[in-house]
Amino acid sequence: RINRQRLVSRLEQLGQIGALPGGGCCRLALTEEDLLGREQVIGWMHELGLEVSSDAMGNVFGLRPGTEPGPPVMTGSHIDTVRTGGIYDGNLGVLGGLEVVETLNEAGIVTQRPLCVAFFTNEEGARFAPDMMGSLVYVGGMPLEDALATEGIDGERVGECLERIGARGDAPVGNPEVHAFVELHIEQGPILEESGIAIGAVEKVQGISWQELRFTGTSNHAGTTPMRLRHDAGYAAMATGTFVRELANRIGGDQVGTVGALEIQPNLVNVVANQAHLTVDLRNTDNERLKQAETELAAFVEQLAEREGIEVKHRTLARFDPVTFDPDMVARVEASAKALGHSVMRMPSGAGHDAQMLARVCPTAMIFVPSADGISHNINEYTAPEELEAGVNVLLRVLLDLAE
Amino acid sequence: RINRQRLVSRLEQLGQIGALPGGGCCRLALTEEDLLGREQVIGWMHELGLEVSSDAMGNVFGLRPGTEPGPPVMTGSHIDTVRTGGIYDGNLGVLGGLEVVETLNEAGIVTQRPLCVAFFTNEEGARFAPDMMGSLVYVGGMPLEDALATEGIDGERVGECLERIGARGDAPVGNPEVHAFVELHIEQGPILEESGIAIGAVEKVQGISWQELRFTGTSNHAGTTPMRLRHDAGYAAMATGTFVRELANRIGGDQVGTVGALEIQPNLVNVVANQAHLTVDLRNTDNERLKQAETELAAFVEQLAEREGIEVKHRTLARFDPVTFDPDMVARVEASAKALGHSVMRMPSGAGHDAQMLARVCPTAMIFVPSADGISHNINEYTAPEELEAGVNVLLRVLLDLAE
Ligand SMILES: NC(=O)NCCC(=O)O
Ligand SMILES: NC(=O)NCCC(=O)O
Repeated sequence: RINRQRLVSRLEQLGQIGALPGGGCCRLALTEEDLLGREQVIGWMHELGLEVSSDAMGNVFGLRPGTEPGPPVMTGSHIDTVRTGGIYDGNLGVLGGLEVVETLNEAGIVTQRPLCVAFFTNEEGARFAPDMMGSLVYVGGMPLEDALATEGIDGERVGECLERIGARGDAPVGNPEVHAFVELHIEQGPILEESGIAIGAVEKVQGISWQELRFTGTSNHAGTTPMRLRHDAGYAAMATGTFVRELANRIGGDQVGTVGALEIQPNLVNVVANQAHLTVDLRNTDNERLKQAETELAAFVEQLAEREGIEVKHRTLARFDPVTFDPDMVARVEASAKALGHSVMRMPSGAGHDAQMLARVCPTAMIFVPSADGISHNINEYTAPEELEAGVNVLLRVLLDLAE
Repeated sequence: RINRQRLVSRLEQLGQIGALPGGGCCRLALTEEDLLGREQVIGWMHELGLEVSSDAMGNVFGLRPGTEPGPPVMTGSHIDTVRTGGIYDGNLGVLGGLEVVETLNEAGIVTQRPLCVAFFTNEEGARFAPDMMGSLVYVGGMPLEDALATEGIDGERVGECLERIGARGDAPVGNPEVHAFVELHIEQGPILEESGIAIGAVEKVQGISWQELRFTGTSNHAGTTPMRLRHDAGYAAMATGTFVRELANRIGGDQVGTVGALEIQPNLVNVVANQAHLTVDLRNTDNERLKQAETELAAFVEQLAEREGIEVKHRTLARFDPVTFDPDMVARVEASAKALGHSVMRMPSGAGHDAQMLARVCPTAMIFVPSADGISHNINEYTAPEELEAGVNVLLRVLLDLAE
């Protein structure tokens, strides 16, 4: 059994790096804070005797040799956060992995297969799209050069940032190979808490569609320009945001739709905006419905731009089909939770995760623990120590099960 | 008759201060650029022999004595611009006034009443609300202390900025007193051009209502948070923007409505926004309809906030009733234009102007010249030299008429 206190203490220590005044954490990918977080976690990996390597994407792997050679059973997640994030999202999966290693070290257990605790670069996608970029490159889903050339919301590129913070490693991308992957994560949604259940055995991950829209209209005087003569890029953006809400409600089921980023220019009270930039995040577990949502949005935006006499440019920031995890792996999570006496339910994931990329190259599953009030990407994100402990004990059991 | 070339050359010189790459000008009130613009215009005032004074609001007055004492006939406007403004808005009224003075100097004409060319601080309201702040303080419509304490969009206050750029003068507010006021301005709208008419005799100015709304919701994960559980401040802002358009169209007539400024936080693709801030600009020549628009907006926002479970804070940034200019003054503008052989029409102003404040203390009127494509608050703002010339000749004639 793992040590709850030690786990919580590591989470809190890592949460100090990029800590925000009211709580929570800002450790956007490949910033100075991310570097400090990396140094902290790599330090712990060394203390625990892991063999640390990192690749050209800045993905980091801590290997614990087994009694036999071969690809390791891997666990892990990410340590980057959104701008106003919590201290659990991603971090739990990495520090939970270290806690499993330390528990095995103390018990003197050496597994047959090697174990590996990894953290992947830029999972959040908050600074650089797409999300899950590090794991996507690791599994060969995105060429390294494309990832390095990706421009972030502040105009900097992944490659320059990796260089600047010195996070670019020399291990070949895709190394180490992986036998199986299990990721422990907070649910980030309300389902486990509402159901009063301790552990989620994640069966699938929603499809994700991220788009960026740029509208170009004509700036003009807010007082003198009749409504019929306007080419208001700000209005186009706001009408799109309102439509996204209606669309998600209309499609229903687990469809969600969000305009999370929006900027208009020149952004002054008495000037009709000539530029607007916004992002649209659409998700559904059902790819057909997700495609329907994308089609309807595209039609709406085209008609809107024509009606308003403005230009629109469209860019796909991320597009991942829904992912179904390996049924045998999901069953192992479920069985381990039950064996430890925890309530468990099968469920989908609303968030994207590195595990969905790893599922392309090996049997993969995820373990969820509850999120208080279903809140995440918020400084008030919270999961109680005993709930964290339950999740890491399930992780320990699943890893042992896979590594023997 | 005035010198067209000299007028255009001064407009272009002043337009160099804060010039933007693609044309146009950024000279927001009380910035370094505004200071440089002030120095340029004050330099010209001295060259033309005007007695220059400025008050504690940074309003600047260039006095040309008459053969008799008493309050001057005043003309003028403003030299601040919006962030992506043109070189005519405001500047024409000030430099047109200087051109009249130079024409009189050359002709050796001394008027009976003194003449005065003024420019007022922060007419645009783009950095500090309300707009027309300097002239509002000059006429006693806003206490000086309140104006000095006003916080701008960048968090700085009017008073500190006035001190920093050294624009705070020692003339008592309200000095010099004024006998009558005439302001020459570009129309900033499409009416004169559409009608093929050279001169607008402005009869009235629309009522202006500027509001700021701040929504506070709960940030959460864009993928995991079901639509029904969201408290999305960004959505509330966008729905308000969409409603403002519908409202303006529904009320019809000359009602306009604009959301020109909008910011959301944390402004990331996969985070439901917890904060949104926007401005609403509503205008109508009919105060009852303007009030109706304000009431409907307030009701919409209240229902929206309640439905979405978010907080809303409301602040009035500016509220001016419609203004009707002195009929005798309007008739003088009309008669002068006709006497010079120009086509002329009576019309309302869609934009706010310093003249609407001066109308509180003296007989006031305005002269409009056409704006190409009705465009203003845009770097492509343009009025042809011969159109500018016509306007300044009308100004010359009206001023002589009033000062004899
Ligand atoms: N788990 C998580 O928050 N991932 C970030 C990517 C996303 O789902 O938006
Ligand atoms: N004339 C002008 O653009 N004034 C600025 C104030 C307004 O928005 O009407």
